[in-house]
Amino acid sequence: MSDLTGFDYPGRMERARATMAERGIDALLLSVGAGLPYLTGYRATPMERLTMAVVPARGEPVLAVPELEAPRVVPRPGVFSLRPWGETEDPVGIVAGLLGGARSVAVGDSTWARFVLGLQARRPEIGFEPAGPLMTRLRLRKEPSEIERLRRAGAAADRVALRLREERFAGRTERELARLVAEMTVEEGHESAAFTIVASGPNGASPHHEPGGRVVTAGDAVVVDFGGSVDGYHSDTTRCFHVGPPPAAFLEAYEVVRRAQEVGVTAVAPGVAAEEIDRATRAVIDDAGYGDFFIHRTGHGIGLEVHEEPYLVAGNDLALGAGMAFSIEPGIYLPGEFGIRIEDIVVVGDTGAERLNQSPRDLGIVG
Amino acid sequence: MSDLTGFDYPGRMERARATMAERGIDALLLSVGAGLPYLTGYRATPMERLTMAVVPARGEPVLAVPELEAPRVVPRPGVFSLRPWGETEDPVGIVAGLLGGARSVAVGDSTWARFVLGLQARRPEIGFEPAGPLMTRLRLRKEPSEIERLRRAGAAADRVALRLREERFAGRTERELARLVAEMTVEEGHESAAFTIVASGPNGASPHHEPGGRVVTAGDAVVVDFGGSVDGYHSDTTRCFHVGPPPAAFLEAYEVVRRAQEVGVTAVAPGVAAEEIDRATRAVIDDAGYGDFFIHRTGHGIGLEVHEEPYLVAGNDLALGAGMAFSIEPGIYLPGEFGIRIEDIVVVGDTGAERLNQSPRDLGIVG
Repeated sequence: MSDLTGFDYPGRMERARATMAERGIDALLLSVGAGLPYLTGYRATPMERLTMAVVPARGEPVLAVPELEAPRVVPRPGVFSLRPWGETEDPVGIVAGLLGGARSVAVGDSTWARFVLGLQARRPEIGFEPAGPLMTRLRLRKEPSEIERLRRAGAAADRVALRLREERFAGRTERELARLVAEMTVEEGHESAAFTIVASGPNGASPHHEPGGRVVTAGDAVVVDFGGSVDGYHSDTTRCFHVGPPPAAFLEAYEVVRRAQEVGVTAVAPGVAAEEIDRATRAVIDDAGYGDFFIHRTGHGIGLEVHEEPYLVAGNDLALGAGMAFSIEPGIYLPGEFGIRIEDIVVVGDTGAERLNQSPRDLGIVG
Repeated sequence: MSDLTGFDYPGRMERARATMAERGIDALLLSVGAGLPYLTGYRATPMERLTMAVVPARGEPVLAVPELEAPRVVPRPGVFSLRPWGETEDPVGIVAGLLGGARSVAVGDSTWARFVLGLQARRPEIGFEPAGPLMTRLRLRKEPSEIERLRRAGAAADRVALRLREERFAGRTERELARLVAEMTVEEGHESAAFTIVASGPNGASPHHEPGGRVVTAGDAVVVDFGGSVDGYHSDTTRCFHVGPPPAAFLEAYEVVRRAQEVGVTAVAPGVAAEEIDRATRAVIDDAGYGDFFIHRTGHGIGLEVHEEPYLVAGNDLALGAGMAFSIEPGIYLPGEFGIRIEDIVVVGDTGAERLNQSPRDLGIVG
């Protein structure tokens, strides 16, 4: 979806300006990525034609868009004005001009290098910095209406997870199963499937495995990690399945991950540091002797983006606070054998975590 | 697909180095986008965890990848070595170190701003420039095996276009039709649907319309623009449909676009400037009095990316040459009424254009 409705964009723009003032930022440039839809409702198409909002600390924000995409933009008077640029115009020059006398400019994290380097060449006197810290400050604590969308996305993902327990896995390729999961993701209410990992047998040991031609067979463990967006906000959940009864060694590792995930969720509370959640889940896995096989952080924030702040990783001493939403997803990956990961999204409430995923976390035994 | 097989990566790397030497570039940095898979076969996941190849003018290329994605990487000894980085390491610092004594560094066009700005902060003495011109030089003329993939992608798209002529449009929403087109795109042999525009009635006047809830009805013109990738190389074709017999005014405009597209294809020959193709199609539309309603360039290159060089646009005096592949897609967009666009991919041969799309270009009359 290119446009997000239902939020107080003038209010958000006001907060952005106040935060810019605090930080001595004269202008904010937002292009592809989540910052632009967060502040204006409009999502830019990632392409060689530049879409970029220029948000000055004082003065009216301007959204420069390719002329042929101008009809896509829902006008929001009071939030931004539109500057469509024609195919033979130079959009970098237009944005460089719109920056006026700015000296300190923040640029959206996923803006393309060619545009940043182009702007630096035009305006060498300007100091450019990543807009990440500024945007994180604005977006870290979700508004109630954002949490409500995350809740609906989580419930839609749960329905997919439940349906998967009734599916036959054996005899289908990972790619076929991934397509099935993607279809269900849409059928259950997501706008589209943002990603679909189906990793079977030894492939499960690759956390971001790309589903391929491997045929799932009896005795395989299968990791399924999927998500999509509902009204712009994402789901992301992982469940594990086993074709037929699992051997004891697998069950033992599975129980460790299940326990680690539970401990992680329980550790969430306002004021607790993000890295503490990572430490808590990791301690369970370390103590069970699988520490070397938990090769990623415990979780990531989620919202307009699948991955955003806060990251639950060693070194992040950010204090968790009400309204923050993130995944808790410990795993164990034994190269050549199998992988296990259990993932739920939680949101921090006044006292602890609210789980946005409620589908069963016990191992799904499938045919 | 994260890995592309079947190309001579050592040979490509060698050509890249030679071109870097010509241009005085000490190192090339490639992250998300097409440059990395072109030179190494590996496609980076767009995310906050940095994947980046450091290709020095002399010395061995190194691919820095998040540790949890290292199992996805197909090793190519002699092309690059791997540097997996752990969740608590600093990948920007690692890349900054790998740059050694480089003074002039080219950065892939769609690399994220946060990484470019991070590298600049670490290595202020380095001059960074966009890698676009260097990569274009390498990728502009397709190899025979690339053209063969584009041919197969074009044929797969043609099968979708043909099937659409038999479909019922009336009574279905744009979104439903777009989902159908996306399904057919995969069924006919694409890895996935890269984009699907279904723009009905007045929505057709928005060239990049996002399919929505509008129900297609009798008397509507419908623009369908879609594509996907086959072994990494893209299709992109546009065909127009009309629900029931069209009025004379529509047919007249349709005929203008059809003629403009034909004239554009015929104008292609080695040595002709890219902008000349744009001028030729535009002249047909101008002469018919619709000039103000052809609001975009005539075409874009295509390959690993849906949009890449060469662009057929006024001001681009690049001489076309054998092996270049691009779209020819004139259109007429009447606000509030309808849109028309006809698009084929062509590849430049020794004497003229080879069309990679052969599905009928006459208006599809549908129910």
